[in-house]
Amino acid sequence: MVERDSGRGDSVASMVSIADVAAIAGVSRQTVSNVLNAPHRVRPDTRQRVEAAIESLGYQPNRAAQALRAQAARVIGYRIEPVRVDSLTTVQDRFLHALAEAVQAIDHHLLVFAVDPDDEISIYARLHRTGTVDAFVLDGIGEGDPRPGQVLRLGAPFAAFGRTGHDSDHLWVDIDDAAGTAAAARHLVARGHRRIGFIGWPEGSGVGDRRAAGWRTTLDKHGLLAECADLDLRGEDAVANGARLAAVLLDRPQPPTAVMAVSDTLAVGVMQAARDRGLVVGRDLAVVGFDDTPTAGVFDLSSVRQPLEAVARCIVRALLPRLPAGGSHAPAHPEEATSEPVGRLLAPTLVVRASSAAATPC
Amino acid sequence: MVERDSGRGDSVASMVSIADVAAIAGVSRQTVSNVLNAPHRVRPDTRQRVEAAIESLGYQPNRAAQALRAQAARVIGYRIEPVRVDSLTTVQDRFLHALAEAVQAIDHHLLVFAVDPDDEISIYARLHRTGTVDAFVLDGIGEGDPRPGQVLRLGAPFAAFGRTGHDSDHLWVDIDDAAGTAAAARHLVARGHRRIGFIGWPEGSGVGDRRAAGWRTTLDKHGLLAECADLDLRGEDAVANGARLAAVLLDRPQPPTAVMAVSDTLAVGVMQAARDRGLVVGRDLAVVGFDDTPTAGVFDLSSVRQPLEAVARCIVRALLPRLPAGGSHAPAHPEEATSEPVGRLLAPTLVVRASSAAATPC
Repeated sequence: MVERDSGRGDSVASMVSIADVAAIAGVSRQTVSNVLNAPHRVRPDTRQRVEAAIESLGYQPNRAAQALRAQAARVIGYRIEPVRVDSLTTVQDRFLHALAEAVQAIDHHLLVFAVDPDDEISIYARLHRTGTVDAFVLDGIGEGDPRPGQVLRLGAPFAAFGRTGHDSDHLWVDIDDAAGTAAAARHLVARGHRRIGFIGWPEGSGVGDRRAAGWRTTLDKHGLLAECADLDLRGEDAVANGARLAAVLLDRPQPPTAVMAVSDTLAVGVMQAARDRGLVVGRDLAVVGFDDTPTAGVFDLSSVRQPLEAVARCIVRALLPRLPAGGSHAPAHPEEATSEPVGRLLAPTLVVRASSAAATPC
Repeated sequence: MVERDSGRGDSVASMVSIADVAAIAGVSRQTVSNVLNAPHRVRPDTRQRVEAAIESLGYQPNRAAQALRAQAARVIGYRIEPVRVDSLTTVQDRFLHALAEAVQAIDHHLLVFAVDPDDEISIYARLHRTGTVDAFVLDGIGEGDPRPGQVLRLGAPFAAFGRTGHDSDHLWVDIDDAAGTAAAARHLVARGHRRIGFIGWPEGSGVGDRRAAGWRTTLDKHGLLAECADLDLRGEDAVANGARLAAVLLDRPQPPTAVMAVSDTLAVGVMQAARDRGLVVGRDLAVVGFDDTPTAGVFDLSSVRQPLEAVARCIVRALLPRLPAGGSHAPAHPEEATSEPVGRLLAPTLVVRASSAAATPC
């Protein structure tokens, strides 16, 4: 976008023009515009010279005036979820930060909003209708979620982290959950484990079902599924449930030597149950969680890590052609900049720590 | 703010005017304006009627045009911190949500941004200069932090969560940390404890020093300080440090019957050390943490809870008179709406759980 002279037309524009700034700094007007709109394209020393000129002249390039000319707020909206009290997962914290960085890398900003859970869509409608945001990033989209359809009907551009399953005619980026648990199961098989249990969420959660499938198909490939079929237990995401279900598995006549959990929250419960029985985690029982929360780090728990930074970049790249401010930005990570897909699956990685690093003793 | 007819003057304004919407909905123009700018003031059924009229006419009250007229973006900027890998604390997640709600309650929005740690202030300067945000909320401000002074020099309105100590001529709201640890110490004394240890951060952190002071003065008041003076140990905020320092205390000839920690992260380490020695937390050793993280809930750890929702509301109220959009909003919590102080201390509350609920056996 070429910056037009702000001294012209707008009632609140300052009397200093972009040409004055350019003259003082000894650069072109385009360079001043770049400092204002795409500072990463400008060499640091030049940027500092232009910023000093802006400062000394008191130049005020009003964003509202720019937005009105461009019909673009250069703002992406993101709903934040209430903090959950029963779970250790702090994935949203990490994703929010990654998303803010990805959005800033294309010279936009991230506006966050809390919603009334009984009337979630009306705030999306208001933010879109008033031009406060140009587009949305939807998070936590799962099986049968009505929100992508609702935002689609508003006519607002958006991309989703997660997918509804049946309705995938919107942009989405998601984690390949089954690939994550498959990697964890392969790791345990390679360490010599033959009795590998799984503690998952109740069926029907989509994400949890895919994580269970990665465990199941990997054991099947290695001819271990028949002898592990009785080691698949399910419960809601809480530490106490992890401990309770692990106790059931450890009391079996043939207990597992390794337990995978669908989340770090359940995995911490598994570690507690093992310690309560005098087992040393990592020596007597291998444990692997999912999400690589800060808790996994402090408890030395192996865990599957979601590539949230890559998810954020992919979502922003998918949105870019639909943003009114346009997309002339070179991707910082060219390997992620393939032709725009409707959906994109990114593989997580396994972080191996002491809880599963050792080979099984038998 | 009275909404002016958007069909007049702005090049991108829609051809439908606010008067058309009012006529179709059978309400005054002021009511339409309220639906757009202060929806909480409008009865739900009226709001729905106006929103239906807006929808059917395709009325577009462009926010950029409004911002240009009002010289107010109605946006507050908030810097988000990178996620820490070595700590269980997720306080920012909870504060961010509370802040978004408080900002929305005065019909503003919250814009979040990540910063380059080597050049933090230039993004504040850009956001302020371009009118992208009207004001900032600074978080995590401690002893000697240069940022309040830097943002003050930019001329941008702001309020801080935390204070620099020496420089308190800016708006700030902070937690009364000493009152939190004093409440925890009184609770333990009331449960019969006489040997109460404290595991804190190294001196000089401000927050940590104040938390230690609350423990010390309360013990002193009860004539217990002399016999507990050897039970004050310090280390960086990590679970392993909590376990290591608790082990030192528990190996003393006269070990404590209760241990307070300056954070839940250190408290979880204390619980680990107790279990490693065969002690039952809550029966053989009382433990109290600080921050009431999700981890405290899942481990049944008593903890001092920061009133982050009240902090967010107080910060927004303190900012209100300095916002260009003005402040005609009735406070939702009148007890927090006293005359505008430069600084405000809010007392945390103790959440008692199984880790400290029982009376000492001796």
